Amino acid sequence: MEGKEEDVRLGANRFSERQPIGTAAQSQDKDYKEPPLAPLFEPGELSSWSFYRAGIAEFTATFLFLYITILTVMGVVESNTKCSTVGIQGIAWAFGGMIFALVYCTAGISGGHINPAVTFGLFLARKLSLTRALFYMVMQCLGAICGAGVVKGFRKGLYESNGGGANVVAAGYTKGDGLGAEIVGTFILVYTVFSATDAKRNARDSHVPILAPLPIGFAVFLVHLATIPITGTGINPARSLGAAIIYNKDHAWDDHWIFWVGPFVGAALAAMYHQIVIRAIPFKSRP
Amino acid sequence: MEGKEEDVRLGANRFSERQPIGTAAQSQDKDYKEPPLAPLFEPGELSSWSFYRAGIAEFTATFLFLYITILTVMGVVESNTKCSTVGIQGIAWAFGGMIFALVYCTAGISGGHINPAVTFGLFLARKLSLTRALFYMVMQCLGAICGAGVVKGFRKGLYESNGGGANVVAAGYTKGDGLGAEIVGTFILVYTVFSATDAKRNARDSHVPILAPLPIGFAVFLVHLATIPITGTGINPARSLGAAIIYNKDHAWDDHWIFWVGPFVGAALAAMYHQIVIRAIPFKSRP
Amino acid sequence: MEGKEEDVRLGANRFSERQPIGTAAQSQDKDYKEPPLAPLFEPGELSSWSFYRAGIAEFTATFLFLYITILTVMGVVESNTKCSTVGIQGIAWAFGGMIFALVYCTAGISGGHINPAVTFGLFLARKLSLTRALFYMVMQCLGAICGAGVVKGFRKGLYESNGGGANVVAAGYTKGDGLGAEIVGTFILVYTVFSATDAKRNARDSHVPILAPLPIGFAVFLVHLATIPITGTGINPARSLGAAIIYNKDHAWDDHWIFWVGPFVGAALAAMYHQIVIRAIPFKSRP
Amino acid sequence: MEGKEEDVRLGANRFSERQPIGTAAQSQDKDYKEPPLAPLFEPGELSSWSFYRAGIAEFTATFLFLYITILTVMGVVESNTKCSTVGIQGIAWAFGGMIFALVYCTAGISGGHINPAVTFGLFLARKLSLTRALFYMVMQCLGAICGAGVVKGFRKGLYESNGGGANVVAAGYTKGDGLGAEIVGTFILVYTVFSATDAKRNARDSHVPILAPLPIGFAVFLVHLATIPITGTGINPARSLGAAIIYNKDHAWDDHWIFWVGPFVGAALAAMYHQIVIRAIPFKSRP
Repeated sequence: MEGKEEDVRLGANRFSERQPIGTAAQSQDKDYKEPPLAPLFEPGELSSWSFYRAGIAEFTATFLFLYITILTVMGVVESNTKCSTVGIQGIAWAFGGMIFALVYCTAGISGGHINPAVTFGLFLARKLSLTRALFYMVMQCLGAICGAGVVKGFRKGLYESNGGGANVVAAGYTKGDGLGAEIVGTFILVYTVFSATDAKRNARDSHVPILAPLPIGFAVFLVHLATIPITGTGINPARSLGAAIIYNKDHAWDDHWIFWVGPFVGAALAAMYHQIVIRAIPFKSRP
Repeated sequence: MEGKEEDVRLGANRFSERQPIGTAAQSQDKDYKEPPLAPLFEPGELSSWSFYRAGIAEFTATFLFLYITILTVMGVVESNTKCSTVGIQGIAWAFGGMIFALVYCTAGISGGHINPAVTFGLFLARKLSLTRALFYMVMQCLGAICGAGVVKGFRKGLYESNGGGANVVAAGYTKGDGLGAEIVGTFILVYTVFSATDAKRNARDSHVPILAPLPIGFAVFLVHLATIPITGTGINPARSLGAAIIYNKDHAWDDHWIFWVGPFVGAALAAMYHQIVIRAIPFKSRP
Repeated sequence: MEGKEEDVRLGANRFSERQPIGTAAQSQDKDYKEPPLAPLFEPGELSSWSFYRAGIAEFTATFLFLYITILTVMGVVESNTKCSTVGIQGIAWAFGGMIFALVYCTAGISGGHINPAVTFGLFLARKLSLTRALFYMVMQCLGAICGAGVVKGFRKGLYESNGGGANVVAAGYTKGDGLGAEIVGTFILVYTVFSATDAKRNARDSHVPILAPLPIGFAVFLVHLATIPITGTGINPARSLGAAIIYNKDHAWDDHWIFWVGPFVGAALAAMYHQIVIRAIPFKSRP
Repeated sequence: MEGKEEDVRLGANRFSERQPIGTAAQSQDKDYKEPPLAPLFEPGELSSWSFYRAGIAEFTATFLFLYITILTVMGVVESNTKCSTVGIQGIAWAFGGMIFALVYCTAGISGGHINPAVTFGLFLARKLSLTRALFYMVMQCLGAICGAGVVKGFRKGLYESNGGGANVVAAGYTKGDGLGAEIVGTFILVYTVFSATDAKRNARDSHVPILAPLPIGFAVFLVHLATIPITGTGINPARSLGAAIIYNKDHAWDDHWIFWVGPFVGAALAAMYHQIVIRAIPFKSRP
């Protein structure tokens, strides 16, 4: 086991440059060095413990994310008068607050994505390999399914009669409205992730990584404040999938594509905005 | 394109001293150096990519600001019972929280103004050139109009029958009350911006820039808690203009001057208070 | 004016050790040096501009504190159904949030007290001179009176028929209950101030001054959550005095002593707890 | 008293490595050194002032924690309409906010546990001695009993007719549901404590200790948002014991074991998850 032990210690450093959220500490030299692009496939990853540990951390974080948020939703919708619950604002705090706490806790282990759309956006910017991106997405979805399942286990009847926290387009809004809301909402989240973790800014502004999980959590909170009346707010395909599978009613599945297409399009737009407008990468000569 | 590429890299540093919010990192020497005053016109700016990038960042930020906040307002006002919405407090969180997240994301690109009154106050203190100030204000107003327009696009009837998030003086208050509330409210915001980004304090207190976006966001949140019952709270002419243009009803236009005069007077008072009382600049001999 | 100009620059450094909240930056050497006790009377202060500037900053901060908080209280109490307002929780956020933002803004100028009880507690620990303590308290009370006066100016009838935000012991509670609630509440606030700004801890824990205004603001928020139903929550004699003078009804004056005796006793207990238990000063040999 | 004085100064440093929350400052060398495991019994502790001071700090913090939180609960439950109170969300803020403020204040003195489950989890990871763990738990329980007692003293009848803030499993949920909710809830809290204070991460990510008390407070807030409808949320045996002893009705005692077994199991699982999965300690060769 000598090699494996070594790997444990090395692994945390070897991939640290590609695990962006909050991991960049105050470096000794403030000059900016563009990190190298992650390769599409990195065979070495598959034999490192830190790769699997990162997947487990994503699973656990998404599990806890769905557990707390869907349980909060259930507590609000089961009551006749919302005044005797934490209210819709409390639901928004649950989603945003959990992302803050979980990004904080897992940033050093997996980068703290907890969301396939974030993983997709960071993959487009080549911050992690395709292998790692797919592995994260699978673990996130599995964690979400388990988290929603535990909530259903508490009170099955209540869960099924109250929508199970699944994302659907609300009455009065078209599917196009829902798709648009998901695109802009995910744009805000992934734009915040990129801004908060941009290595170029880290070199200049030492305050950036210190607070990174806080604005990311707030972005999730704010999008929920605005779009809960429209779609219940997805902006996280794993969260939508987990709730849909455990709820498993037709009307939830009918709209389900919106909560994959919307977030992925929004994440791609945010990645493009950051790389082209903010970083101006196409206009730079590569070293 | 060689020159342009060079510009991309230079631009971020060349104007950094005049892009105040949160950009000042922990410098090696703690001594205070008064930054030079920005010239009224700086021809070099107009040929730098970082100048236009800053304008785009202000446009995008103000667009997202109006989108989230006006959508949150619509979600609250369309419901008969406020208990089943995020409530008036949720509206205040949307405004303050968005300013926190957006200042955090754009501080390193444009200074993170997102508000013509903030730009005006910083211009009075000669922290940015007149050219740049006017460019920012135009981009902020365009972004605000687009943001409110997208919200109207979701449900036009609902938007028009519920006030469209436009600022008006509430029944029971005089126009003088509204003007006063806007002046004091904007004073609080711009006073916080100056205090949080004062280079003199940065030199002494290394904690100041680290948290700067947080108290600025809180200032917006707090003014909304207090003055939503009076004017709906403007303290941001771009936000008021965007909502008024998209809503476009007479009674919103009647009060509209209040939401330009009030914020600009408040910002000027805050700039004077900071420069004369706190910094005592008139009493110092210039080097 | 040569001497005066010099004074402006010197003043900020000369008294910095006695202006505690958040001013202690990450010093080069981490060793702890006990700051010297402030003298009871320091004649030099009276001829320094920084002394008067600090008083003006305390006046302005307390003015803005009362303006926002009492206006928020008025907005909540005037409505028949609290659901269409920011609610009692919004009032607690207004008080706590303003303290967070204002301590952040004024910490480098005056120490950011904004509360005679805090000034009293820090005076007992000899962190500022008696001259300065009395000057701060007078300026705080004047600021509070003006702030409440402006709120009354908006709608006098509404103000007078809704209690004017004055602190009184609620029906069902005895004066002893109110006094106890004020003592423990102020203990929590001043204990947080001491813990967050203890120079001994600053030497060990570099995170302490960075966040100092945030837990102080939260302490105010939390005490309001708990004791608004009992006394409306004072824990700040300037706030209670300002509201009482502008409201000026007998039943507010009857209980008024509680909101001076309670906070001063609580502050004294917190100062004793910190100096005797946490710092163990009586058991140390003085150098 | 010469020896005792010396002890006061030494004590704060001698045990600092084992008082984890937030105490690790930005060290000069970023390399990671595994701190030595705390011995089960450390005789030297019992003669140090810092040991007893830590116990007093835990007592005071838990006293203030129960005082504010149970008083907030009483203010909400006594009102017929929750809209005229701070609401259930306000209760969640009281619990989470107090943990944030108190961890911030006591981290440098005792490590800031304020919760026997946290002490138990850190003991399992051998971060403090058995002597110290037992001493902390006793002090926490005594503080909680006193805090709840003071709240009862305000209005005894009201306290007894409104449940006294004691934790019971709500109607419609089984005891197994309550136990599960306590286990997962405490897992989230203790997982956050471990993640935020892991010395390995501190070495890499300098932002971690700076914000540590904030995500820990948020974890408590979030678990309350989700599980107040199920058990009222314990996740802190001292809090449950204090409320149960002062309330002292049979139906509170019937469920009381859940609020000891659940938190201790959750804390043990979090300690195991952190040590085995995240830190991979069993797979490492010890030096």
